[in-house]
Amino acid sequence: MNNDNTSFSRRGLMLVLSSPSGAGKTTISRAMLERDANLTMSISATTRPMRPGERDGEDYYFVDETKFNLMAGRGELLEYANVFDNLYGTPKIPVEDALLNGQDILFDIDWQGTQQLADNENAKKDLVSVFILPPNTKELESRLRTRAQDTEEIVQQRMAKASDEMSHYREYKYVIINEDIETSVQCVEKILAAERISIERQIGLHEFVQNLRAPN
Amino acid sequence: MNNDNTSFSRRGLMLVLSSPSGAGKTTISRAMLERDANLTMSISATTRPMRPGERDGEDYYFVDETKFNLMAGRGELLEYANVFDNLYGTPKIPVEDALLNGQDILFDIDWQGTQQLADNENAKKDLVSVFILPPNTKELESRLRTRAQDTEEIVQQRMAKASDEMSHYREYKYVIINEDIETSVQCVEKILAAERISIERQIGLHEFVQNLRAPN
Repeated sequence: MNNDNTSFSRRGLMLVLSSPSGAGKTTISRAMLERDANLTMSISATTRPMRPGERDGEDYYFVDETKFNLMAGRGELLEYANVFDNLYGTPKIPVEDALLNGQDILFDIDWQGTQQLADNENAKKDLVSVFILPPNTKELESRLRTRAQDTEEIVQQRMAKASDEMSHYREYKYVIINEDIETSVQCVEKILAAERISIERQIGLHEFVQNLRAPN
Repeated sequence: MNNDNTSFSRRGLMLVLSSPSGAGKTTISRAMLERDANLTMSISATTRPMRPGERDGEDYYFVDETKFNLMAGRGELLEYANVFDNLYGTPKIPVEDALLNGQDILFDIDWQGTQQLADNENAKKDLVSVFILPPNTKELESRLRTRAQDTEEIVQQRMAKASDEMSHYREYKYVIINEDIETSVQCVEKILAAERISIERQIGLHEFVQNLRAPN
């Protein structure tokens, strides 16, 4: 009956990583998925066309706009957003099934999606939100200046968007300054380890303590 | 600007470890104090007489009952309790000073002391409470049967007291099943690491993000 591997039931959690683009979130997410067998990526529904190599139900659930709006209207999406005229959303049922089975789910969503999860009475208790910040402005700018031909205007637009995203850091439970990828990944691992033994996740504890207190 | 060693201010936290006697709390506390330079033991005020080898202001603040009651009456104690006719309490000022300086403080108190901290509007935001459980009844009983000459009645009394303490596990934020000391110590370390980067502790973050968003 180990702490990372209790023999009684644990409820899964929703790990949300948000950050301005250029802060290293994608690299950290990939590392977490590789290292932690109990963590899987949330699969979104989207109205954007399938790209070569993508698979329905694996990369996304590809749906048309009518179907998407039907799902949203029925309350079947935990959160959704319009990004560059395509709709993206998180179907509720697969997430709920995973959580019941003690599986943790990683969400790569922005502050707007996170707010929707935090505002949802059912979802918020499962939410572990982490905001990732770049270590300094110079680093952020150099990461946003990805191609040599980027105009100053384009870089400035990206900086403004990053600044807008960062203005929401306070709405998160944890904040990581991503100075070094390895340290940041370890930070996320520690957050996961701690959150997994938080009282509300160890749903089998009651029975366990009952047995300890009155074994016969 | 590392995550465990940010160059901006962090508020300290109050780490409370509680457990029934015989669950390994003392061993875990000692290991944590040895390994973590930023963690110090809370020093209680007490009316119990000083024992040989003890030092005032180091092991305890030794005070008489009049002084203790005065402190309690003035609201200068974060929590206090009567244990075997001696009074024990936590003076507020040294704790507040330490927290302001980003120092974390370890409390070895029972569920009653923890409830007092949790009920205190100022203290509760600094509180990180961990309950430690024995892995099974057999293990607990063998740890409580410490001396060969213990009568069955004495062991049963200790078991009843342990059962009473365990009935309060739900009031804690984290629960650790202490199957193995090293694993449990690492669990507490992960809880500390995670809690230190929680948004409410990183009090210098606001300025840091302001600079990131508008560097000039």
